Amino acid sequence: MNKLSACSSMACGISLQPKMVLASLRVRKQGNGRCTNVPRNVNLEKLQNNYLFPEISKRELQHLEKYPNAKVISLGIGDTTEPIPEQISLSMANYAHALSTADGYRGYGAEQGNQALRKAIAETFYKDVAIKDTEVFVSDGSQCDISRLQLLLGSKVTIAVQDPSFPGYIDSSVIIGQAGDFQDKTGKYQNIEYMQLGPQNNFFPDLTVTPRTDIIFFCSPNNPTGHAATRKQLQQLVEFARDNGSIIIFDSAYAAYISDDSPKSIFEIPGAKEVAIEISSFSKFAGFTGVRLGWTVVPEELLFSGGFPVIQDFNRIVCTCFNGASNIAQAGGLACLSPEGFQVCLMIAMNRNGQISSVEMAAVDSDLSQTFEEETIVGERTLFWHAICAVIDYYKENAKILVDTFASLGLEVYGGVNAPYVWVHFPGSKSWNIFAEILEKTHIITVPGSGFGPGGAEYIRISAFGKRKHIIEASWRLEKLFSKGKPLFNCLK
Amino acid sequence: MNKLSACSSMACGISLQPKMVLASLRVRKQGNGRCTNVPRNVNLEKLQNNYLFPEISKRELQHLEKYPNAKVISLGIGDTTEPIPEQISLSMANYAHALSTADGYRGYGAEQGNQALRKAIAETFYKDVAIKDTEVFVSDGSQCDISRLQLLLGSKVTIAVQDPSFPGYIDSSVIIGQAGDFQDKTGKYQNIEYMQLGPQNNFFPDLTVTPRTDIIFFCSPNNPTGHAATRKQLQQLVEFARDNGSIIIFDSAYAAYISDDSPKSIFEIPGAKEVAIEISSFSKFAGFTGVRLGWTVVPEELLFSGGFPVIQDFNRIVCTCFNGASNIAQAGGLACLSPEGFQVCLMIAMNRNGQISSVEMAAVDSDLSQTFEEETIVGERTLFWHAICAVIDYYKENAKILVDTFASLGLEVYGGVNAPYVWVHFPGSKSWNIFAEILEKTHIITVPGSGFGPGGAEYIRISAFGKRKHIIEASWRLEKLFSKGKPLFNCLK
Repeated sequence: MNKLSACSSMACGISLQPKMVLASLRVRKQGNGRCTNVPRNVNLEKLQNNYLFPEISKRELQHLEKYPNAKVISLGIGDTTEPIPEQISLSMANYAHALSTADGYRGYGAEQGNQALRKAIAETFYKDVAIKDTEVFVSDGSQCDISRLQLLLGSKVTIAVQDPSFPGYIDSSVIIGQAGDFQDKTGKYQNIEYMQLGPQNNFFPDLTVTPRTDIIFFCSPNNPTGHAATRKQLQQLVEFARDNGSIIIFDSAYAAYISDDSPKSIFEIPGAKEVAIEISSFSKFAGFTGVRLGWTVVPEELLFSGGFPVIQDFNRIVCTCFNGASNIAQAGGLACLSPEGFQVCLMIAMNRNGQISSVEMAAVDSDLSQTFEEETIVGERTLFWHAICAVIDYYKENAKILVDTFASLGLEVYGGVNAPYVWVHFPGSKSWNIFAEILEKTHIITVPGSGFGPGGAEYIRISAFGKRKHIIEASWRLEKLFSKGKPLFNCLK
Repeated sequence: MNKLSACSSMACGISLQPKMVLASLRVRKQGNGRCTNVPRNVNLEKLQNNYLFPEISKRELQHLEKYPNAKVISLGIGDTTEPIPEQISLSMANYAHALSTADGYRGYGAEQGNQALRKAIAETFYKDVAIKDTEVFVSDGSQCDISRLQLLLGSKVTIAVQDPSFPGYIDSSVIIGQAGDFQDKTGKYQNIEYMQLGPQNNFFPDLTVTPRTDIIFFCSPNNPTGHAATRKQLQQLVEFARDNGSIIIFDSAYAAYISDDSPKSIFEIPGAKEVAIEISSFSKFAGFTGVRLGWTVVPEELLFSGGFPVIQDFNRIVCTCFNGASNIAQAGGLACLSPEGFQVCLMIAMNRNGQISSVEMAAVDSDLSQTFEEETIVGERTLFWHAICAVIDYYKENAKILVDTFASLGLEVYGGVNAPYVWVHFPGSKSWNIFAEILEKTHIITVPGSGFGPGGAEYIRISAFGKRKHIIEASWRLEKLFSKGKPLFNCLK
């Protein structure tokens, strides 16, 4: 319907009768405008129009038209705001600058990522669970790898998602052709299993009523609820996947925010290697949202039903549909995890002539652990972790302020302890209405929970990424309004 | 076949009879190993095992085992070897270093790319053909955008490719599900139209015998033949696409190597905007193979058969399946094209305290053309182009040496004038045999033409990317062998 009306009115300049369309299947010339004979992808036709964040941006612009002097505070999109520790930015700067020297220049790297970085990721995050460096694939971020995993899986598999969850799982599923039509009544796509999360089940799906699917997307700590699944819950999830022969795609992008003893990786659960892939990212861990760096772990033990190793197909996808993350970003990732990598970058920086020996530069691309004293390495790694953790702690303190604020307003508040997101419940309300009301009364941008699935219909998500002064100002605006004796939210009247 | 044998032998540890497989559809526990019940993607099953470059690497390793002291020269993979001009690497270095300052830090950028970079690409490459900045999508390289375009198009479209051509078009087509089975006899996939290229048709397909397909992948200058289609040829191609209502995906990654008046963009051809998408890259233009930066142009005029604008769906794909190229790489791209961008980076560099005003930093993200005198801009742009062109000229001089060498051996040589690739014909021979013979006798790595499709069966591709000394050494080895009076190649006996 949309297609034809677009062609006949705006786009092609003239009106087409259905019969004419049929008659002109091969050649179609239409005044100034002209359509090809290539049909639009039916999967993209199914996708709902308003992607969450562009819609929020539109609302923000409308708000600014109405209140041109309003000082809008954005607690919407989960984007990091604090500078990267200088040691890390310096590593990238030195790597980049060295690209103009004969010895420092590098062309194509391995599609799977720099060998030293793969090793550093395996050793830093997966040492206790014995993930090998060859099972780590460096990416330009987990959002991109979600689509590459969909290319790997194809259109024939069935999937389950947490409801609510990051919209990329469902949207990429629709694009690859796994989903049926969108149902306005339920807010769900057909053929996708929505695993409901809420206070009633401690934000963990009731697996006794969850049907089997081939794939289970599972994000912990969850975006948007902020809930980190406990060890017991993840044990149940792995058992469920093993019993059903399913594959879990575990998104641990927010693992660095876990404060308690919840597992930071699905591979902490025995038996997970035979049923799980893990995607993760430097974005929220080291402030690399714009630098673009992440990784995916595909264990050798994970096999398709016929016994073919998933890792072999994923390797093929990475080699064909990707060409490696930017080598400068990878140098930054290595600096985050490996003082050895940083040492080399420092040597380069100290050499004022810009003449870098090929030995030094090669070292950035390879394993250097033999070159440095173990004590130095441990000491420097501690320093690095302090720098990165200081930024994470900053956001977590922001989250605490926001949790306290909303709780003091008498609202049910979740998340914010193991994640940079605060999830606030407004029973009986619609999330876009809450979004609009908060924006209208406090000039604060939030995210309507329904953007994360129908399970978020009565919630809003508040991002704790932001400057402290803005978080405090936002908190003050919310409390001030409340203290005037007026109920802040209509839904609480 | 492969699937079951893998499961029963190596992977799962025990042997499975077909009946047992059926009986254990839901749960399957098999000693130490265990398969999921998720079927392998049939599209990936269709893909042929040996991807070209990994196979070449394997052969190189085997050669080194046989001749441990051989000084192998690689004229295989088309990877840049010369340093990036320092102004450009410095821009990236300064951008990266500034990420550790409060004012210089940047999180997520626009998925479609930095606004100033989109404008600079439009103005630098498409000024005369009036492509708008909003039609330019910045990518992490054209290989990645080929797969994103396949996600856009879906599995239902039909495609044509040049034969020979870059294997990524076909492989991504197989992965998304457009292709039928691979035919060992012909070396072709079913449902893909192979447009044969050779001396007999001046390396341009005979369109009078080419059946209609929805999509036509067309690379000019072509990888591997090195042939740049003439204006007249491209006019024929555009007319063919218009008559058929097809979409051309035009790969101009090597356009900077064109020496004659062949078009550098498909949009130089009137009427192309209604039938073409163009993908391109900074890789071979500015030595960014490892930095990862490219772009895709989708004109607003390009419409699906129902009239829906292709650009809207591509925008949705970019927002959902991608999250923008690394902001550091984008700063480098801007420096390549825009002295204004570089000026700002220079200001940052000169500020020794690392204190960058937000105005300066914001300028990197926006249009600065008003800030500088037109004369300065033109002068500096000239300087920049000199630096970039000097590197391109270096590779082209390499190509000339290689063309002359092979021609002097009495072989038919193509390409090398408008492209960094030399395409050598060995009538009646098989390309893997030629590859093996050259490696055995001269320790030089080439690429067997059959890796680019059955149309390359009698050819090898020689890459002109390399250090001059290696090119000269390679030339010397080839000529020396020949001058001994022995015919170099068995096929010439």
